[in-house]
Amino acid sequence: MALRLYDLAGANPERRFSPYCWRIRLALAHKELPIETIPWRFTDKEAIAPSGQGRVPVLVDGERWIADSWPLANYLEDAYADRPSLFGGLAGRPLSRFYSCLGDTLVAAIFPFVALDILDVLHEKDRDYFRKTREERVGTTLEAFTADREQRLPAFRASLAPLRVTLKDQPFVGGERPLYADYALFGSFQWCRCISDFQLLAPDDPIYAWRGRMLDLYDGRAGKAKGYPV
Amino acid sequence: MALRLYDLAGANPERRFSPYCWRIRLALAHKELPIETIPWRFTDKEAIAPSGQGRVPVLVDGERWIADSWPLANYLEDAYADRPSLFGGLAGRPLSRFYSCLGDTLVAAIFPFVALDILDVLHEKDRDYFRKTREERVGTTLEAFTADREQRLPAFRASLAPLRVTLKDQPFVGGERPLYADYALFGSFQWCRCISDFQLLAPDDPIYAWRGRMLDLYDGRAGKAKGYPV
Repeated sequence: MALRLYDLAGANPERRFSPYCWRIRLALAHKELPIETIPWRFTDKEAIAPSGQGRVPVLVDGERWIADSWPLANYLEDAYADRPSLFGGLAGRPLSRFYSCLGDTLVAAIFPFVALDILDVLHEKDRDYFRKTREERVGTTLEAFTADREQRLPAFRASLAPLRVTLKDQPFVGGERPLYADYALFGSFQWCRCISDFQLLAPDDPIYAWRGRMLDLYDGRAGKAKGYPV
Repeated sequence: MALRLYDLAGANPERRFSPYCWRIRLALAHKELPIETIPWRFTDKEAIAPSGQGRVPVLVDGERWIADSWPLANYLEDAYADRPSLFGGLAGRPLSRFYSCLGDTLVAAIFPFVALDILDVLHEKDRDYFRKTREERVGTTLEAFTADREQRLPAFRASLAPLRVTLKDQPFVGGERPLYADYALFGSFQWCRCISDFQLLAPDDPIYAWRGRMLDLYDGRAGKAKGYPV
């Protein structure tokens, strides 16, 4: 039986936009595991209750429910050890942990650019929940929170310097081929692309070129997903 | 014959404070290679001319002169492949590239806290050179550049979140044992500690605890070095 992945969706069930779910969708493709994705909305807490928490990604593998991207990546690596490694062996797993944390930081850094755009793509039933929880978190309206994004863009792009320099030397963070470290970072950019036409990356940025290579992987798994051509 | 490493020193030849040299000193210890370090000052360009450039680290291995920390780490990994791996095998090398870039970014981020303190520990012959080149680079006096460092400290510490979260889960970036990824980041903190009594890290920070483990490695190679007990 195919694995099932609860995958955050917008009003259009084809718009899948969780940065954390994208990490796992590409990790599953990397492991050559067929999956069935189930569109899930922020307020569908009951559907994933067996996972013991209220957020996606949630993977169902037979009787097992596993949540949260890093534990999930580790589960896939161990449960499907005979398939291509997500981490690159030996020290690859601990070395990848930091990339996972960095991906989280990247989500937080990108959120002030796209928070309001997310609202536009959400299912009607999620909008109040999203606005209320996020405005509480950021301490202002989503409109005010995102208003000066053009001015903040140069500093954001400059903050990506270590990734930029790395990707001048090698096609993927994992080297000649992508690894979980790539998926952990890419998920944040794919999230942005799925919900907003904001030009977060300049087209002449090596990170933009890397993102293009990521979009093409696995028969365009991420590139063909519903989003904006930015 | 022991390898020779040109190692940036202050007025006191025992004060060795290059973040990039520290990466290589620990990499050499990791590889269990005995070395002779040669105190070097910024203006000693002729001494390292055979390396084809004017900065340290410069390693002399028999007839070979190798410069720059990342090429040097790769040289050591390949030339001494039978010794403990610096990268952790397979994808460890490309995965470590980013840490090297991140270490460079960390140097740039720490510089505004310690730029003026460096001047105090420099050899007399280096002071004018250092002040002139650095003030040109930052566009103001070193005094003005560092004046508001206390106010900037919380934002700097917050920027270390991905490293902090990683080190809550594992003792080293490389996992149970340190790898080049650790040395690449640690060099920046050791640099700071060698030249300044400024409390860059809070003692209850997991990064501080990791730094302590790094200071203890290889019979306290970094911890016993001349610096400040911060």
